[in-house]
Amino acid sequence: MKKLINKIDDVVAEALKGLSAAHSDTVRAIPESRVVVRASSSSPKVVLISGGGSGHEPLHCGFVGYGMLDAACAGEIFTSPTPDQICSAVHEVNGGRGVLFLVKNYSGDIMNFKIAREILEGEGVDVESVVICDDVSVTDSTWTVGRRGVGGTVFIEKIAGAYAETGASLNDVKSLADRVNANVRTMGAALTSCTVPAVGRPTFGLGDDEIELGIGIHGEPGRARVKMSSSAEIVEYIAGAVVDDLPFRPGDEVAVLVNGMGGTPLIELYIVYNDLKQFLGGRGIKIGRNLVGSYITSLDMQGVSITLLRLDNQMKELWDHPVRTPALCMWR
Amino acid sequence: MKKLINKIDDVVAEALKGLSAAHSDTVRAIPESRVVVRASSSSPKVVLISGGGSGHEPLHCGFVGYGMLDAACAGEIFTSPTPDQICSAVHEVNGGRGVLFLVKNYSGDIMNFKIAREILEGEGVDVESVVICDDVSVTDSTWTVGRRGVGGTVFIEKIAGAYAETGASLNDVKSLADRVNANVRTMGAALTSCTVPAVGRPTFGLGDDEIELGIGIHGEPGRARVKMSSSAEIVEYIAGAVVDDLPFRPGDEVAVLVNGMGGTPLIELYIVYNDLKQFLGGRGIKIGRNLVGSYITSLDMQGVSITLLRLDNQMKELWDHPVRTPALCMWR
Repeated sequence: MKKLINKIDDVVAEALKGLSAAHSDTVRAIPESRVVVRASSSSPKVVLISGGGSGHEPLHCGFVGYGMLDAACAGEIFTSPTPDQICSAVHEVNGGRGVLFLVKNYSGDIMNFKIAREILEGEGVDVESVVICDDVSVTDSTWTVGRRGVGGTVFIEKIAGAYAETGASLNDVKSLADRVNANVRTMGAALTSCTVPAVGRPTFGLGDDEIELGIGIHGEPGRARVKMSSSAEIVEYIAGAVVDDLPFRPGDEVAVLVNGMGGTPLIELYIVYNDLKQFLGGRGIKIGRNLVGSYITSLDMQGVSITLLRLDNQMKELWDHPVRTPALCMWR
Repeated sequence: MKKLINKIDDVVAEALKGLSAAHSDTVRAIPESRVVVRASSSSPKVVLISGGGSGHEPLHCGFVGYGMLDAACAGEIFTSPTPDQICSAVHEVNGGRGVLFLVKNYSGDIMNFKIAREILEGEGVDVESVVICDDVSVTDSTWTVGRRGVGGTVFIEKIAGAYAETGASLNDVKSLADRVNANVRTMGAALTSCTVPAVGRPTFGLGDDEIELGIGIHGEPGRARVKMSSSAEIVEYIAGAVVDDLPFRPGDEVAVLVNGMGGTPLIELYIVYNDLKQFLGGRGIKIGRNLVGSYITSLDMQGVSITLLRLDNQMKELWDHPVRTPALCMWR
């Protein structure tokens, strides 16, 4: 295992220190609780809090800032944050207008955000949750009952985050996040396994000419292991599965995320985007907005995931709302 | 070789199509000449043009847009753009206020930008060039006489690009770019080799416990091949070489780039940044501005480079100028 790290136990703490030092104008890390919050408090608004295991950077801590999250909780690598961390995050940023948890559907995350919610409700805090479950690959998985939460998380955090900035109520922000969640679908493919630092060897074996279709972001098994093929063929398989699932229909306008899994160079992601545009064009689906880059990763895994969101006018308008976070920055 | 590509001959053309389709509000690709220009023409100003071999994405085409480049020319993978491409780029964007070429120091690039300059001067176009040579690792290399141009390119494109937006003259923008070039230094380290698509196997061999210090962005040899060590030790070696070269002195304020080589996950880059901050603190050097991410890459290589620029007030002010390109976007 070759990684740019020091002690294995310090990986998450040091990465958070690095993130907050590099982006001190935007975020602040609280080392004791491994929580990242905005550097400056916003005007009273519904606060959005997410979190999960580390190893998926920039998710979630890289999305804290104006127009997205108010706080994020970083668990150990591929391990849920604790209820204590989540409560700390809320205590740091709660402005009294209510709290929305954005939780990827993994059993540990569900459990810990639920415990935190009970504690906070006991303190009189108004908390709602959205459980993100956009991965069409498999139902029930290594750490998940139901569908896993993956790339759709980025769209939900962006769009709900923008809505909260406009002063929308907790119920309204939750409804919108639910609507995005209901209209977003994802599938990924791995060219290589990730290697968890504490384990020191690849999570799964994969032949020199093999890929795993429907991979999870922790290396959980997908739908099929097949021979390596072209970008266009991989796009046809995974985007095909995504389109057929919702289903997306001719005439739909979508936001797409072409997401690198951590070890994938940008030049390849643009080739995938080009293939995806052609594939969707053939299905009569129009790309209205897009992101191409590594936004939700699996350590050093090489591979790609494709996320499609059926857009409506409100989502488009909120997508275009400015955002200023360490990992996503847009203005016009 | 597992890569998300289609036909090897189509890699660059398809990636440019993908880039320009994904960022059509910012850039436009001209397929015949493999040139990327801004989507909308700017008010008359000095135009900045760069280019080089592909395989280093997002450099250079990802830096076309407001506040940075006016056009970029994409050669084949690790191959210089031709004089024809460069002339096409100038013809597309020249507004009559003069043209500045930003050229990384590789023999092919130097030759082709020089030929283009002669052609353009024959047409009456006012052209100046800056040859970027910030890599302290080695003098004279596989494709270079003198020092290689690497991460410093990103700082030069950003700062000179901002200055050009303010209406500065060609001589003034060139002087500033020269000053940035004179004050910027870089060194990299590779954990793995890159694999050029047309070759299909790693460019160089490297043991499972070895790293190459001073690596070039095409996999050219560096200073030393050593056993894998910790992030802090790697930082001490490469940042030490960078600091000693200029030299950077106690009291200096610097901009730093912690740059992933294409296959390096962000979590590792933040650990490196944390180590770098401590290292520089120990030398009495203050980080005034920073970038952490994969900005100048070597296909799928895993590794990192560290760039330091000694800042002055003008550079800092121009660094903070808003920028809106596919790969770098900042506003306050």
